[in-house]
Amino acid sequence: MRITDMHVTPIAIADPPLLNAAGLHAPYALRTIVEIVTDDNLYGLGEVPGSAATTAALEAAREVVVGKDPFQLNAIQAELIAHFGEDGAGARGEAPWDKRRMVHVYSAIEVACFDLMGKATGRPVCDLLGGRVRDRVEFSAYLFYKYEGAGGALGFETDPNATGWAAARQRAALDPEGIVAQAKAMCDAFGFRSIKLKGGAMPPDEEADAILALREAFGPGTPLRLDPNAIWKVETAIRIGERLRGVLEYYEDPVRGQENMAKVRTALKDIPLATNMCTTSFEDIPGSVRLHSEDIILSDHHFWGGLRASVELARICRTFGRGLSMHSNSHVGISLMAMAHLAAATPNLTYACDTHYPWQSEELLVGGRIPFDEGCVVIPNEPGLGIELDREALARLHEQYKACGLTERNDEVEMQKVQPGWKFQATRW
Amino acid sequence: MRITDMHVTPIAIADPPLLNAAGLHAPYALRTIVEIVTDDNLYGLGEVPGSAATTAALEAAREVVVGKDPFQLNAIQAELIAHFGEDGAGARGEAPWDKRRMVHVYSAIEVACFDLMGKATGRPVCDLLGGRVRDRVEFSAYLFYKYEGAGGALGFETDPNATGWAAARQRAALDPEGIVAQAKAMCDAFGFRSIKLKGGAMPPDEEADAILALREAFGPGTPLRLDPNAIWKVETAIRIGERLRGVLEYYEDPVRGQENMAKVRTALKDIPLATNMCTTSFEDIPGSVRLHSEDIILSDHHFWGGLRASVELARICRTFGRGLSMHSNSHVGISLMAMAHLAAATPNLTYACDTHYPWQSEELLVGGRIPFDEGCVVIPNEPGLGIELDREALARLHEQYKACGLTERNDEVEMQKVQPGWKFQATRW
Repeated sequence: MRITDMHVTPIAIADPPLLNAAGLHAPYALRTIVEIVTDDNLYGLGEVPGSAATTAALEAAREVVVGKDPFQLNAIQAELIAHFGEDGAGARGEAPWDKRRMVHVYSAIEVACFDLMGKATGRPVCDLLGGRVRDRVEFSAYLFYKYEGAGGALGFETDPNATGWAAARQRAALDPEGIVAQAKAMCDAFGFRSIKLKGGAMPPDEEADAILALREAFGPGTPLRLDPNAIWKVETAIRIGERLRGVLEYYEDPVRGQENMAKVRTALKDIPLATNMCTTSFEDIPGSVRLHSEDIILSDHHFWGGLRASVELARICRTFGRGLSMHSNSHVGISLMAMAHLAAATPNLTYACDTHYPWQSEELLVGGRIPFDEGCVVIPNEPGLGIELDREALARLHEQYKACGLTERNDEVEMQKVQPGWKFQATRW
Repeated sequence: MRITDMHVTPIAIADPPLLNAAGLHAPYALRTIVEIVTDDNLYGLGEVPGSAATTAALEAAREVVVGKDPFQLNAIQAELIAHFGEDGAGARGEAPWDKRRMVHVYSAIEVACFDLMGKATGRPVCDLLGGRVRDRVEFSAYLFYKYEGAGGALGFETDPNATGWAAARQRAALDPEGIVAQAKAMCDAFGFRSIKLKGGAMPPDEEADAILALREAFGPGTPLRLDPNAIWKVETAIRIGERLRGVLEYYEDPVRGQENMAKVRTALKDIPLATNMCTTSFEDIPGSVRLHSEDIILSDHHFWGGLRASVELARICRTFGRGLSMHSNSHVGISLMAMAHLAAATPNLTYACDTHYPWQSEELLVGGRIPFDEGCVVIPNEPGLGIELDREALARLHEQYKACGLTERNDEVEMQKVQPGWKFQATRW
């Protein structure tokens, strides 16, 4: 089994005007799709957050990948590191999605190789990671403050013919009532049983008010999470944490950096702190252990170096008594199924996973969008990821990429279109 | 693919009278062999240190294993834990081989399932662990103080017709000259390029003299290791370490427990400390990190819970800047090939691995004993572990088990046969 080609396709998918600490989502989210083809006419799929730089790095990786056996992941990774350097010239910035380029490149390739390995052996990907511990992977509602608008070609406009969640998704949500209405519509449509609010967008007490309104609306049986994306001061995080004591399932990245997280954790004691920003790579683990900067780590195979690395992260979490949840960015179904297979094979991934999937409306899979059953993705029994590529849809989303003019994610620039002069601040409140 | 049966066979293999901190090797070493059979007429092999208790536990595990798909390792493990409890009623004692029963049971089953997965997919086991980073896995010479004797039916007698290493293996080695002669014969026969001396058997300065004699005989190009099996006092370990500064590749378990190891490490600074006794499970890792009790961990898939767990241990070692080597007990070729596949797929396993294999003379594989090429085991390209079971040989070694009368390893009792009244001491010198 030999890789004969690797197709790298940047795509753009419509994304509504969602607010976050870094600014505003552009009308399109970018992803880069990898399709690896073998000499026995199999193909495997991978997907990572998109940018012109990531696409170029993946293009440059083709010469390493072609000719290899997809089972030889250690060798592929070693050669990629030799090619790009460990950090792949992509140092991390302060935005939540700034990750090392090498890790992105490898994780896209690794997932596509796992898809191939599964197809070659007739096994679902989860079976190649130790086998499923659950047939259904639970996801969480992921709420955003947002402006009115459907995103995509509609931008801040709405589609008057939309119904159900497609209609609700267009509405503004800028206060607790808007957030509760969004939560109800999303939970009705997808069956989610836990809720995360992306914070860091509004003044902290307004976000705490929204969490308390969600508790009021959903009752104590629905776990609630708040993620201010590290934009708060330590004293703010502690004060808001006190307001939400007994209400939060976990408190995700209220402050920036392991030292600050450790201070908040010490002050708040019984409120579990979670992170996807202060501990985001294996290099960060020793500091996390030394400082005990968080109780729960959000894994993300795109950022930790693939599925096998994420299983290894899970072992580290078990070993050090850390909980394990899962992070998401705007994505299509390749990433969703990769996340689901990983979660299915990870015994200690006991929190409902994040997903932005309800915010997207487009898909590049045969059969269209992946359904949620009572908030869960059902793990398929088909070989590999259990999905097939709709090449016409891929071509359409690639045309959309070329037409939209975006080459990287920059939520600050998008925000400035609405609020001229707006500046990202690493610590705002 | 469904498991239809699991055959559990205790065997005894001839073992010479080797000395160690716990006493003396019996004339036979015990192993338990697991053969898992599936409905598509494949079989997979596993091997673990033997005892009547381990054999009974594996027999009791049959009802969990039969009916399962060998890819569903997470489910098998979860059900075994539910069946036996996490510790499997087998608490660890002070001897180096006292490990948790559940870990032994699972690792035997897991290796057999990996062998099956490899055969079912047409892939060597290393390909299911990320793929090989090396085609040849290097092993180290493993020297022992010993009495004269071939072990097995000959006991303390020797076979006058033996030649080469088989003759050298019979000779006593009770002083530096004997150890050097043993090393030369073993390295000549197997091509080993690094040397470990099992210490803790003679007064510490005599063992240091032996290491210095090895350095004199082999020169600085041959890495040397000394393993007193945790039987020395801290001050002894420091004093002997000072004598061997600049000579040891690593210093393995000179003292007992993480706290004592950390004291020795702090005192000796630039001599790498290794362990297979103070950090032997994932539960021990937080203490190891906190105290920095060692620089190098010796993995052992039999003791850490299988091949996948050992890959995860390797990630922990990389994450915390620990080196990684590999431990061994007396064993036959199933364990040797499992160790070799694991090492082949572990990028950071950069030390030559331990193996007792030269001390054994019997084998249960078709084709007989696995050859070493310049100290290395060559990773086969055949599916699974790449070995086949010689059922006649297995039956013979099982008869030998029944005839030898041993039901567990007890080096103290064996030693008392030679030195009446001899007692194991956790700290002797």
